[in-house]
Amino acid sequence: MTMIAVAASQNQHKIDEMEAITEKFGMKIVGRDDFGLPKIKIEEDGETFEANSLKKASEICMLCNQITIADDSGLVVDALDGAPGVYSSRFAGEEGNDKKNNAKLLELLKDVPMEKRTARFVSVITMVYPNGTKIVARGECEGHILFEESGENGFGYDPLFRPLGYAVSFGEIPPEEKNKISHRAKALEELQRQLEQLH
Amino acid sequence: MTMIAVAASQNQHKIDEMEAITEKFGMKIVGRDDFGLPKIKIEEDGETFEANSLKKASEICMLCNQITIADDSGLVVDALDGAPGVYSSRFAGEEGNDKKNNAKLLELLKDVPMEKRTARFVSVITMVYPNGTKIVARGECEGHILFEESGENGFGYDPLFRPLGYAVSFGEIPPEEKNKISHRAKALEELQRQLEQLH
Repeated sequence: MTMIAVAASQNQHKIDEMEAITEKFGMKIVGRDDFGLPKIKIEEDGETFEANSLKKASEICMLCNQITIADDSGLVVDALDGAPGVYSSRFAGEEGNDKKNNAKLLELLKDVPMEKRTARFVSVITMVYPNGTKIVARGECEGHILFEESGENGFGYDPLFRPLGYAVSFGEIPPEEKNKISHRAKALEELQRQLEQLH
Repeated sequence: MTMIAVAASQNQHKIDEMEAITEKFGMKIVGRDDFGLPKIKIEEDGETFEANSLKKASEICMLCNQITIADDSGLVVDALDGAPGVYSSRFAGEEGNDKKNNAKLLELLKDVPMEKRTARFVSVITMVYPNGTKIVARGECEGHILFEESGENGFGYDPLFRPLGYAVSFGEIPPEEKNKISHRAKALEELQRQLEQLH
């Protein structure tokens, strides 16, 4: 099945990963900017990844009348009772960035020993069709938060996150490898399994 | 929201767990036998948990014309390239049982050291509405396969599965605790998050 989907995201890192992962199952992702949509900001005010993901996909689907795919994702840290969670991208405030977010995370965890630094990356991928069909797929990747940033690959909290079974961070793992094991890869594979059944 | 759903399962262990977990979010699960459906056997011939879960929920939904919930679940062992997977309940053949399945798993893994005995329990919960709406939610629980059975709680491969972060098997963990961390709990929580958004 070849399927074209408009990505609700404006984060080029996310779009690149979604393209690389979905290429394997014959899906073609088109950025919403490439599709020529006006640059609107969708407020991500949901309390869950599912709420934000569905909101983004639904709003963009209404605007473009095409099958739309959205990713809402973040880092869930056990020692912080699940924070930063849905606030991952604005953990250090609306004017923050990856560097400030990572610094805040390290500061909050500075007295937490490695065995209690368990965390997971979560991605909720939602696909919304113009006819109202909604598909929701969640993927998780378990791991630990390191004591300092390591590696230049990936984005967001990747340099601080060491996935289970690896000795290095997502910042040090090549993109091809990350795209096999990441939360986003797992969510997109789950989406694909659901699509195979629904069509 | 209070919701009544007919369970496609005839496995009382599964129904009990689904009831205990969904009670927290106001869902009432009714067994299909309690609903008075004829005792038909649904062939689980799909290649994925998603396929089998959706098939079970869809067929029972057509029969009873009620919102129907199905669980397809199993154990995915890395050292066995994902086996027993969708064949978990009939790993030792159609005439097998938990005891024979567990014995076969131990035999196949007898030369595999603990660090390579990684595995995960997977549950795919599907909810199908008479109007055609379908919700699919996957939950996973990471862990290791022990060298011998331990504990009397749970069912299936539980006595052989030690979840991540625990020193004992699912067979030794009290049901209330298993129902907080299990693959089935995670899938039902994800279902609930999706329901909150879709309604």
